Amino acid sequence: MKIETKLEYFTTPLYLESGRILEPYQITYETYGEINSDASNVVLVCHALSGSHHAAGRYEGDQKSGWWNGLIGDGQAIDTQKYFVISSNVIGSCFGSTGPMSNNYPSNQPYRLKFPVLTIKDMIKAQKQLLSNLGIYHLKAIIGGSMGGMQALQFAVDYPNFADKIIALATTYATQPWTIGFNKVAMEAIRRDPRFNNGQYEKDAFIENGLDGLAIGRIAGHISYLSPDSMSKKFGRNYVSNDGLFELFGRYEVERYMEYNTNNFSKSFDPMSYLYIVKAINTFNLSRGYDSLYDAILRIKAQTTLISFKGDYLFFPSEMEHIEIMMQRNQQNIDYYEIESDYGHDAFLVELDKFEDIIKQALEDEQ
Amino acid sequence: MKIETKLEYFTTPLYLESGRILEPYQITYETYGEINSDASNVVLVCHALSGSHHAAGRYEGDQKSGWWNGLIGDGQAIDTQKYFVISSNVIGSCFGSTGPMSNNYPSNQPYRLKFPVLTIKDMIKAQKQLLSNLGIYHLKAIIGGSMGGMQALQFAVDYPNFADKIIALATTYATQPWTIGFNKVAMEAIRRDPRFNNGQYEKDAFIENGLDGLAIGRIAGHISYLSPDSMSKKFGRNYVSNDGLFELFGRYEVERYMEYNTNNFSKSFDPMSYLYIVKAINTFNLSRGYDSLYDAILRIKAQTTLISFKGDYLFFPSEMEHIEIMMQRNQQNIDYYEIESDYGHDAFLVELDKFEDIIKQALEDEQ
Repeated sequence: MKIETKLEYFTTPLYLESGRILEPYQITYETYGEINSDASNVVLVCHALSGSHHAAGRYEGDQKSGWWNGLIGDGQAIDTQKYFVISSNVIGSCFGSTGPMSNNYPSNQPYRLKFPVLTIKDMIKAQKQLLSNLGIYHLKAIIGGSMGGMQALQFAVDYPNFADKIIALATTYATQPWTIGFNKVAMEAIRRDPRFNNGQYEKDAFIENGLDGLAIGRIAGHISYLSPDSMSKKFGRNYVSNDGLFELFGRYEVERYMEYNTNNFSKSFDPMSYLYIVKAINTFNLSRGYDSLYDAILRIKAQTTLISFKGDYLFFPSEMEHIEIMMQRNQQNIDYYEIESDYGHDAFLVELDKFEDIIKQALEDEQ
Repeated sequence: MKIETKLEYFTTPLYLESGRILEPYQITYETYGEINSDASNVVLVCHALSGSHHAAGRYEGDQKSGWWNGLIGDGQAIDTQKYFVISSNVIGSCFGSTGPMSNNYPSNQPYRLKFPVLTIKDMIKAQKQLLSNLGIYHLKAIIGGSMGGMQALQFAVDYPNFADKIIALATTYATQPWTIGFNKVAMEAIRRDPRFNNGQYEKDAFIENGLDGLAIGRIAGHISYLSPDSMSKKFGRNYVSNDGLFELFGRYEVERYMEYNTNNFSKSFDPMSYLYIVKAINTFNLSRGYDSLYDAILRIKAQTTLISFKGDYLFFPSEMEHIEIMMQRNQQNIDYYEIESDYGHDAFLVELDKFEDIIKQALEDEQ
């Protein structure tokens, strides 16, 4: 599989949903496989909150592969012998696209909290611009989970003729207050951390010692990515501290898991980007800009595959079902799968064997 | 209804589950109604994490009544014309019983993080001591929700002949990792807050400006006290900030609710007490000290009424059902009710009309 990581600069303005303008901006993206002569084999893959353009393959020296490495590759469900896969880092991110810690023009200082609020609509608009610059005006498919699924759905609503197919996993039609609540923990924990200093921190200040506020917010996140059942199966009431049950800060296994994952995360993810991306998730609502959710969904022309997971406590299956029911009623081209899983929301990143055949089939189906 | 608030001092040691000793200690408690001649009408009410001995009535100048005011009173479900109700503040609390910010003996300095870890077993042992001091050696009933329900169950297991009846709402047989996860947010947010200063803060330091760490932890708590459905019904996607959708820290209604409730809470609750009580909830496990959960539950002789709420996302109905099934199998005296509710875990404090008749009936039933 041929992998390329590239950066594209845009000097044309990006008109944002807020009315503000992002100019100039850049997008980092990765491609897998090769484009065919008529550019008819392009698949766009969209990442989630903590993801990046690095969806597949493994960089030299890295222990971990891309976040959907098991799904994207030669002979895999998203077969790079057939498809040319593009994975772009969303704007707002800290992994190479323009975000709040990028330098503003012409001051050459980081935007920080002056960075404009971005939405999912803005993210896909930027990606569409990227594709145009690459000479790609039509996609075979758009695939993503969680915030990636929001992008796939938003693409299908905003640009109905742009992709033949969309596949959205573990996502929703509009972010619900339960999920906004979880995000609130992160937003407040970051905002109130003295080291966050109202955004006036040095770039890369937290590489050595991650920001506590982000780590704490991420603990709440990890609760929502798992589920009561998955946590009971994974951790039970196992206690792992040597200092015994009667030590105030002694740890249950679930607590150690939370600490380990979140402390590391807070060293590698910029807290300002986290705030902006979480805000984009909060404001996600397919109906915005249309007369109703029904009107928005009625616009979809792509062959749509929706995959939800039974134990998903962040975006409940009923939310995906809500889309399915509308599309069924409209006799739109929709397939919906609710998958049994012990992994909760994380299933879209973990239990690939449970849905890789669905994705493979959906991509191969002739419309 | 006659209300009295009192304080009882103990100079005898309290032998804790940890092996440590609490000595001396004090318990603040409140009573409603009057004890009858043979002391056969005593009902013990047990409070939850954020509660206190102030279960009913309203203090002069207060806007809010006790936490179960709608349930305890003359002619109410827990009828103070019939029953003498005692509500004691748990040890570890910051509302008048000995807790981590109480002075140690003989140093006369606050214990702070040297306070011994307490368990639910310790809490009820202290309450049993209180009752003994009052000349009460047998109870008509023990009633409580959430952590209060844990106390009721633990009483019935540890002292099977002590109460005729127990009524436990919205609780569990052992705290599950999902709930420990939510508590982890609070523990880490408090522990890492610089103003917490490893426990070396002035007593009442946060009355003016609540501790951020506690407020943040409490946001996670409020997520678990509600539920996805209750939040959707209560808040929807309403946006309440004047500064518009595209302001980074603009607020959805659910966010405003979280901020309002948690900022106030962090001014009135001591963060150290919060840590210790949360730890007691985490370590709660009816089977500890017995050969198995089955053996523990088999000890129960009290007429047991369990009430769970369908939308409870902190202690799921299945956890109460687990107890019911065991007790049914053992042909113990058990009634189980699963109540429809839109309020999630909070239902045991809010939707009194849904279960007051059950409590009334359970108290009146002749065994």
